[in-house]
Amino acid sequence: MTSERADRTEIRPGETSLTLPSVADEQVYFIGRIRTPWAERRDCPRAGDPHEGPLCTVEIAEPFRPALAGIERHQFLQALYWMHRARRDLATQAPHGAAASAGSFSLRSPIRPNPIASSTVQLVEAHPDRLVVRGLDCVDGTPLIDIKPDVCPNAGTKPT
Amino acid sequence: MTSERADRTEIRPGETSLTLPSVADEQVYFIGRIRTPWAERRDCPRAGDPHEGPLCTVEIAEPFRPALAGIERHQFLQALYWMHRARRDLATQAPHGAAASAGSFSLRSPIRPNPIASSTVQLVEAHPDRLVVRGLDCVDGTPLIDIKPDVCPNAGTKPT
Repeated sequence: MTSERADRTEIRPGETSLTLPSVADEQVYFIGRIRTPWAERRDCPRAGDPHEGPLCTVEIAEPFRPALAGIERHQFLQALYWMHRARRDLATQAPHGAAASAGSFSLRSPIRPNPIASSTVQLVEAHPDRLVVRGLDCVDGTPLIDIKPDVCPNAGTKPT
Repeated sequence: MTSERADRTEIRPGETSLTLPSVADEQVYFIGRIRTPWAERRDCPRAGDPHEGPLCTVEIAEPFRPALAGIERHQFLQALYWMHRARRDLATQAPHGAAASAGSFSLRSPIRPNPIASSTVQLVEAHPDRLVVRGLDCVDGTPLIDIKPDVCPNAGTKPT
């Protein structure tokens, strides 16, 4: 495990690991890279804010840029990204501040068999090679794996 | 392209393809399998309904079952699944019924570089090896890649 993938290596009391399959089932392409103000996970907000979060930039890799056509028509987008620093082998986890451990599927922790995060973001600027958005919560340099119109029924209104 | 991955092979007028990278960046494990009433994509609803959609079953593969601990505390979950029958190489698409083509990232079409779908589902029953939910929209047998508590600010209320 390199420093690039080293957010957490210890297993805490109450946590259990699982044995991942020896062979994976499918493959993912990184379609871009997310630029945020946060260099380390401890600096990141607990969840992004599509209304008042800081501006972040979603850079789209060259082969995938034509697929952005028409993106400017959507005010709210769903971004999927790969939490590349997280371990993948915990069945139960004891997050800091939690009273007890819980299954990885009962948490939105980055630690999960497929470390995919989903955030609703507000589109502020669309360029041919990048999007400026609000609502992300990840470390600078996180790989992007998908972006599409959001469907959260209330994303367009500010939660009260 | 086998019949298992053959939802669409032609390129329609107005559509363009992209060249996928020769090497993928990361690997995905299928953590389970989704059982729905729809055998073919043409039978599927356009979007799932977590309130009134039919009951579907999310089967969790054996190695991943311990990660369900505590899932019953969440009424609404976010399911991520792999649209295994979709091609991945279209930059722009002309969906049936659309007036013009649009970039793949401007659509929620299954056709995208990483064919990952996201749905909000309502948890109806939690078992050690499976979840019964409402809100899915995919063909029977679709591979599950993640499930976690939903964060859509309004998922718990019925859209009006």
